[in-house]
Amino acid sequence: MIYLDNAATSLHKPPQVIEAVVEAMQSLGNAARGAHENSLQASRVIYGARCKLAELFGFSHPERVIFTANATESLNLALNGLFSPGDHVITTDLEHNSVLRPLYRLEDAGMISLDIVPADTLGNPDYAAFASLMRPNTRAIVTTHGSNLTGNLVDLHRVSAIAKSHGALLVVDASQTAGALPIPMEETGIDVLCFTGHKGLMGPQGTGGLCVAPGVDLRPWKVGGSGVHSYSRTQPEDYPTRLEAGTLNGHGIAGLSAAVDFLLETGVETIARRESALTRRFYQAVKQIPGVTVYGDFSQPQRCAIVSVNVGQEDSGRIADALMEDYGIAVRPGAHCAPRMHQALGTQHQGAVRFSFGWYTTEAEIDAAITALQELAAE
Amino acid sequence: MIYLDNAATSLHKPPQVIEAVVEAMQSLGNAARGAHENSLQASRVIYGARCKLAELFGFSHPERVIFTANATESLNLALNGLFSPGDHVITTDLEHNSVLRPLYRLEDAGMISLDIVPADTLGNPDYAAFASLMRPNTRAIVTTHGSNLTGNLVDLHRVSAIAKSHGALLVVDASQTAGALPIPMEETGIDVLCFTGHKGLMGPQGTGGLCVAPGVDLRPWKVGGSGVHSYSRTQPEDYPTRLEAGTLNGHGIAGLSAAVDFLLETGVETIARRESALTRRFYQAVKQIPGVTVYGDFSQPQRCAIVSVNVGQEDSGRIADALMEDYGIAVRPGAHCAPRMHQALGTQHQGAVRFSFGWYTTEAEIDAAITALQELAAE
Repeated sequence: MIYLDNAATSLHKPPQVIEAVVEAMQSLGNAARGAHENSLQASRVIYGARCKLAELFGFSHPERVIFTANATESLNLALNGLFSPGDHVITTDLEHNSVLRPLYRLEDAGMISLDIVPADTLGNPDYAAFASLMRPNTRAIVTTHGSNLTGNLVDLHRVSAIAKSHGALLVVDASQTAGALPIPMEETGIDVLCFTGHKGLMGPQGTGGLCVAPGVDLRPWKVGGSGVHSYSRTQPEDYPTRLEAGTLNGHGIAGLSAAVDFLLETGVETIARRESALTRRFYQAVKQIPGVTVYGDFSQPQRCAIVSVNVGQEDSGRIADALMEDYGIAVRPGAHCAPRMHQALGTQHQGAVRFSFGWYTTEAEIDAAITALQELAAE
Repeated sequence: MIYLDNAATSLHKPPQVIEAVVEAMQSLGNAARGAHENSLQASRVIYGARCKLAELFGFSHPERVIFTANATESLNLALNGLFSPGDHVITTDLEHNSVLRPLYRLEDAGMISLDIVPADTLGNPDYAAFASLMRPNTRAIVTTHGSNLTGNLVDLHRVSAIAKSHGALLVVDASQTAGALPIPMEETGIDVLCFTGHKGLMGPQGTGGLCVAPGVDLRPWKVGGSGVHSYSRTQPEDYPTRLEAGTLNGHGIAGLSAAVDFLLETGVETIARRESALTRRFYQAVKQIPGVTVYGDFSQPQRCAIVSVNVGQEDSGRIADALMEDYGIAVRPGAHCAPRMHQALGTQHQGAVRFSFGWYTTEAEIDAAITALQELAAE
């Protein structure tokens, strides 16, 4: 089986990730719930993971690294906790439903007004629109770092400068890029960075989080047990407890911590170079296949390890099924939870066949996928 | 190390739980995100876990078994998704902050009015108050099944009958009882059953869920990617997708599924009998130690495997530290996130030293804890 669906989840993890989860399941108590050795060990593992993630993201405040179950929860927490009635928000056509649906819900509830920066047919946002859509009450720009459909990156430095010049915050969905590309949070001026643990970070499913810059306060989302200030009617105000009611996924976070160790040792730049080379190899070959349409902007100097294509007018699901059944290649077809991006590309009916690569993808697997696509296109 | 903090998290899991997590981390894709073998395998594992949990809880609707990260999330989802402006809600003094804080927040926002059934000094709710507090607009009784502080059970059949006779729903926090005691959901008339995976169910941290009876509709809590209906502005309405935006914790759920296999094979009644015998053994001995106060009602025919005590006027934290340092016994002191229960018992300043037992606790460990408490009380 050739697994080329790393943008959905990284199937292959560094071996030490699994080892760390096993060790955690044999030794961890409930973090911040008691002072015995197993509970303290859980607290140490979790605090260590905060510190490593802060280092990975160029962020100096580990206590403001908050753990969640996935990027969707991070985004719901951020978007429901940040805005007040009357706020204006700007987002983009590139977004996943995990950004769009929370914002639509706030808009439909009359809480916020929303403008959406259009994308062109290459899948790039209209950067001029970020500035022209600004209003005095614009509280934030919410944007993905990399499209899960085209793999295009958004130029965060550019968007950050626009946000800062208008006094707005920058909220970033790094689902596709955390662990796979450098994201220097403070240097870039990101105010809230949302990530998942099970994709480029190569941690277990059930992990994710967000980094909340000092000066930005999110209202609690889940409230409940906190292990401290038990007699308060409300969730404690200090970070990270403010945003982390209930028992954390200590077992998963131990695995994520081991994964971040691997990333820090290997170097995200090294990972990015390898994935970029694999992506180029695939792109250079498939763009020449007659009948194959490739989506996205491959003139970008850096991008996600994603190449989405279609073959003629064939339904993307049929191509993906053929790749699986005839070639043992796992990819994802369909709508990818990115409805506006499909509309911009004109693929809302056909969907797209997404090939996505990771650290453990080999050149031989890339070449097998190229051959498979050549044969399917020739049919 | 003698681990007697099972009410915080079950440190010792059946070996097949760890094996299932390892296998999942080596094979699962992202459930409901694609149709290749790894993704389908994730979907199968997760659907299997729904079916097993439904069987465990005497519930005929596996598609209405919803996965969350823990009981706190389950309760936030249930309580924020159920009530409408003007609703009246009844809860109890026995509750954990994971019930109280979501309800307080709704009350403070002017969404609901709230009444709280008082507890007596034994820690039992005033059952007459459930009926006398009923109003025409009472939407639900929200109650724990078992107190995390005293281990007392609430008579759910009795509360259910009161709720039903007034047309109100019954929402149950089964954090302390799921997996440890039988909870026949339909037979008892529970409308929403909230549970965590990492305590009596003996699954991994980062797992939990809720069962939502047909006819009860919860508004979505997290919204975002759903893998289906990508072009809808709102979360799909069908269960379970309605309440499960984002990538599920497939790795953790695989472990939880193996844990429920173990519970179904062993029999929850067998587990309950064993834990009850251990609890009785401990209680019968420590209640006779001069200077030791035991909290809770031990005339109950069935209860949680919890015995909370204090030694004279000693701070509960000091006793727990001595148990850890001098005897290697892990327990939990302090406030246990149950502020009103402490007030009813009069232990809000002293806290309480909670001993909690599990399937893997041995009689020798019970006896060591008895001896330790005898020696500490004699000091």
